[in-house]
Order: sequence, then structure tokens, then C-alpha cells
Amino acid sequence: MHKRLFIPGPVEVSKDVLEAMATPMIGHRSPEFSELYNRVIPKVKKILYTDQHVFLASSSATGMMEGSIRNLVKGRVLVACNGAFSDRWHEIAVNCGKEADQLKVDWGRAITADMVDEALSTGKYDAFTFTHNETSTGVMSPLEEVAEVLKKYPDVSFLIDAVSCMAGVKIEVDRLGIDCVLAGTQKAWGMPPGLTVFTVSEKAMEKAKTVEGKGSYFNFELFLKYHEKGQTPNTPAISLIFALDHQCDKMLAEGLDRRFARHLEMAARCRAWAKERGFKLFAEENYESVTLTCVENTRGIDVNALNDFLATKGVVISNGYGKRLKGKTFRIAHMGDCTLGELEEVLGYIDEFLNK
Amino acid sequence: MHKRLFIPGPVEVSKDVLEAMATPMIGHRSPEFSELYNRVIPKVKKILYTDQHVFLASSSATGMMEGSIRNLVKGRVLVACNGAFSDRWHEIAVNCGKEADQLKVDWGRAITADMVDEALSTGKYDAFTFTHNETSTGVMSPLEEVAEVLKKYPDVSFLIDAVSCMAGVKIEVDRLGIDCVLAGTQKAWGMPPGLTVFTVSEKAMEKAKTVEGKGSYFNFELFLKYHEKGQTPNTPAISLIFALDHQCDKMLAEGLDRRFARHLEMAARCRAWAKERGFKLFAEENYESVTLTCVENTRGIDVNALNDFLATKGVVISNGYGKRLKGKTFRIAHMGDCTLGELEEVLGYIDEFLNK
Repeated sequence: MHKRLFIPGPVEVSKDVLEAMATPMIGHRSPEFSELYNRVIPKVKKILYTDQHVFLASSSATGMMEGSIRNLVKGRVLVACNGAFSDRWHEIAVNCGKEADQLKVDWGRAITADMVDEALSTGKYDAFTFTHNETSTGVMSPLEEVAEVLKKYPDVSFLIDAVSCMAGVKIEVDRLGIDCVLAGTQKAWGMPPGLTVFTVSEKAMEKAKTVEGKGSYFNFELFLKYHEKGQTPNTPAISLIFALDHQCDKMLAEGLDRRFARHLEMAARCRAWAKERGFKLFAEENYESVTLTCVENTRGIDVNALNDFLATKGVVISNGYGKRLKGKTFRIAHMGDCTLGELEEVLGYIDEFLNK
Repeated sequence: MHKRLFIPGPVEVSKDVLEAMATPMIGHRSPEFSELYNRVIPKVKKILYTDQHVFLASSSATGMMEGSIRNLVKGRVLVACNGAFSDRWHEIAVNCGKEADQLKVDWGRAITADMVDEALSTGKYDAFTFTHNETSTGVMSPLEEVAEVLKKYPDVSFLIDAVSCMAGVKIEVDRLGIDCVLAGTQKAWGMPPGLTVFTVSEKAMEKAKTVEGKGSYFNFELFLKYHEKGQTPNTPAISLIFALDHQCDKMLAEGLDRRFARHLEMAARCRAWAKERGFKLFAEENYESVTLTCVENTRGIDVNALNDFLATKGVVISNGYGKRLKGKTFRIAHMGDCTLGELEEVLGYIDEFLNK
């Protein structure tokens, strides 16, 4: 039996999206492909509030995390670290041979504007990576405030991992002065994995042209060169681009404000439910994620047994992340095509388990 | 109207493969995924005649061309160049900051064992890249003979681009002593693009552990680490792995020898047809590709007009590659799930055009 996914990615994919993905194949150097590409990119731009560059990489988001480092770190990068995925960005920078420092806070805490300002004021950095939504801890760090700080440092490239929140929360790329923000499609985009959506500001593109050792596959200049022909540099995951085109239409038909409000409403409901049941939230207050709720297992329930029970209902949630948080937390994702009704259904099943 | 693809990738994808791809989503850290992964890898090993490492990268093959360079070139790499895609490997090596020399012959010619032996005998290289099937020219260079030569140079890593022939021709990875061979799934595998199948020999894996600057996304060590858990390092293109599992079953049911014979038969038919119609083949004699036929346009037909006509029949072939060969050649692909009957149908339509 298929278990509907309430884990923080991959998320449950609607049948119509799966069907769009199964569209018969076309050539990636054909007019048909350029039509598709030139149709979908403007929709993504609308969803990300940007007039600058939007590209599609055929990789998981981790690939383009590496890409953004290779293209935009010339000297030394500051990596904001408050969980497993922000730590990963540091590991990637080191693996790419870049000089990288960590701005580190405890798991569960947010990265705030003051911290960023203090670290950047040293003048040591030409790039800063920020994990907007830490999937491992359910913390959403304050993008708006941090973006304000970054405006004081125009020579510092502003790189954002929005993997588990892009298309679920409003990210106004141009107004916030973001140089590069990226996300895989298997989270709040509500699609299967294998494609990464990312933006590059004009300023970042100019900088990338001056950086050595970018490689080929994630090379921004090559993305730009082929973009101008309505193509991607290499054969892309065409099926996923069909799905993205379809999904953008659905998102724009729902209305972006309504979409973001739906995510906020689900998050509020999930947090309230957890507190009513006597749990705490793992995230620092006021910085709880909008797309997933990381519940601190203050009641000491058996999370594996919970998921075994949920499996009999045809759904699955996520245990805590890694050795560090497994059993101590559990995570309920509410993003993408998920509705408040579906969330209520899952919470009802968890209640059944708690009342047994 | 959908045009059935007889271009050298992406190829036409059968309805059942598209449907397999649309399987409902599962988590990539779930037991369900490990089951899928541990089911599909042994099938791929059978198809590639290897007991060593087989991995799946969520990228186009170009990504893993870069990966193989990053993992297996320590000193200086020799790049066999006889067309656009082998040239690309040189460009990638340079973009990755590696020392790279070209072993260059004219487009349309094969890279032969003697040439490779002479170049490697200089002792300058610790890696050699070989494009088994040059998609731009329709030349299939002699893998068996070149592999014999490489056995004389055990310290030279043997990297193979089999992008447009893997799973269409027999490649006995272990017997031939191949260190790394890769292919995207949108060619002779008969699947949509977005996934790359690649092998790594034990020897190459040991070497990779000693190479600096591998990055993260294409890092062989990370593939191995997660493979041992029945997983991939990052969220993979799960839908394409569902399709691969299905496609492997079909291939093994057809029988590998029968599958390879079908490709040989289609190639023989296509070459004979071209010669009977007064065309030449662009590839040097005895080195014509088995998966696509590059026809030299010795009759001076209007290839664009031909494709316009074919479009009315619901099929499409490929013009020559790039500025260099456009109009001067055209390419008919016969790989993947393509049958002799379907090839005959296309050749019949081209005859209709020629007789007009």
C-alpha cells in the first residue's frame, strides 16, 4: 500500500503532476523544448518575484549548493550553521577547496540579523550562505531582517538555501537583493525530485564570470549562454520540466498569496495541535518553520511505533533528523499540495495513537 | 501532435516506461527506497557485466563526465577527441583545472588502439578518456582493442563515455578492465533524461580516495558510503529510478544478447538503406555506430525540408551536429526500445520524401 508522505521531502505528489511528468518525450534542442522552457521560466520568475535570471538544473539542490559555491566564492565564505543542512553547505565549501568559516548556533536556534552583521563586519568574506528553512530542526531563520543586513555589504554575495520552503513562503528575490536562491522541486513545489530551481542576480552573474575553477555542469555562464536560446546547457530532466510547467499553472491559479496563506494556516494548526497535546516545539519561539513542524518529543512517545501505526492508515511522518534528533523529535511536513484537511487527517491519526 | 523521436537522444520513451515513472512518490531515506535501490542495482550490474560498483547520479551524463574527471585525474589526462562530445570532455577537464591533452583525429574518424598506445607510452598520463560512441559523427571507436592497450598501463584510469550506446551494445565492464563508464538514461536505455548510470572499479575507488578537490555532488566516496545503506548521497530522481527498474526488467526479459542483436540488425539495415539510396556514411568504414547512423548528405537534400515532411508523418530525425555538420549530414537513431519495424517505417517516409 502506498503511504501518503507527510515527511519534509520528498512530499506527496498529486496524480495530475505525476501525469504531467509522463508527457511523451521531446528533443532538448527542439523548438518544442524551447517553447516549454520559455513558457515555464516566466512563471517561475513570477513565483519568485524576480526579473533577473532563473535557471533549472538537473540535479538535487545539493548539486546547486555546490554550484553556487563554485561560482560565487572567490575568497572566503561565511556559512550560517544551525542544523544538518546548513552544516552540509560548510562541508561542500571545504570539499570544493574554498576557505570557509561557520557562524554557528545550537540546533533549534535561528540565525539572526545581529549575528550576521557582527560576522560580516569583520570584512573577511565575499560570500555568505544562509539556510532559510533548516529541515533538520524546523527552524525558519528571518530572511527579511538578514537581507536588510546584507544590503550593508554589497560586495558579499548572498546565497540562500530555500530547499524546503521555496514556493511555500513568499521570497521576493529582487526586493531582498538575493544573489542566488535555490530549491529542489520535491518539497514545497510539490513535485518529484531531480530538478533544482535557482536564481542568479545580474551582479552575481558578473562576479561568476571572474571566478576560476567553476567546472562545467554547474557553471552559471553556461546556463546563461543556453538560456538565451531557450535551452539548458545539457540534456535536462525534461519530464520534470513538464511537471513544473503544470505545477506553476496550478500555483498561479490558486493565487500566490492564497498559497502562502494556506501554508501559514497549516503551520499554525500543527503548532497549536502539538502544544495542546503537551509537546514542545523544537524550534526557538518565533522562528518555527512554516512548511514543517519539528515536535520535541517531550512526552517520550515511541516515534517508530507511531509511524508503524500511521502506516496502517496509509500515511507516514518523519522521525527526528539523524542520530542527534531521532526519537527526541518528530517532524510533520505540511507543504506543496498538502491541504489543511489532509493535515487534520494525519493529526487525527496521531491522536488515535496517543489515546491508545 | 507528438512526433516520435528518431534522434540520438532523448529517444522515444514507451508508454509503460512513462507510466512506471509516474509511480507515487516514496521517501529517499525510507525502507521502500532501499528496496527499490537494492533491486535495481543488481539488474544494472548484469546489464553491464560487472561485479564492481554501480551508482546512479541524478544529473545528465555531462555531470558525471565532470565527476569522473574530478575523482580520477590526479596529474594529467589524455582525452581522445574525434567529435563534439569527446571535445566536451576536454573542455570539462580544463574547466575543472586539470592538465589535459587531446589525442585528436578528424571528425568522422575513429580512435584506434595504436594511437592510444603511442600516446600513453609517453608515460605522461594517469587517466585516459574515451568516447565509445561519438554521437556527433556516428563513429563507434573500437572499445575491445583500446581496452587491450589500456591493460598495458595499469596506472592509467580508463574512463569511458558510453552515453549513446550503453545498454544498446555489449560492454563487459569487468573483463575489459574499465575504471569508469557512464551514460545518461535518455539514449539506448530508452528512458527519459535526468539520471546517469555509472560504474567505478575497485581500483578507481581506491584512487579516488587519494584525489583532492572532488567536491561533494559527484564525489565517488559519498556514493559508496550511501550505497552501503541502499541509498544515494542526495535526494535522487526517484521517478526515474522507478522507470529504470521497470526498463531493466524489460531488457532482461528480452534477453541481453537478443537486445544487442536487435541493435546490430537495425544498424545494418539503416546503413544498407543509406548506401542503396546513393548516400555515403559519415563514419570511417568499419567504425559505424550501432545505435545511430550518421548519413553524409552526398545527394544534397534539404534536411530541414525532410524533417518538415517527416513531421507530417509524426516522426523526427536529427540534422547534422552543430554548425560544422548541419545540412552536410543527417542522423537517424535506432536505439532503446526502437524496433526494426519502426525503423523501416521511418526509412519508408524518407523514401517518400526522396521520391517526391
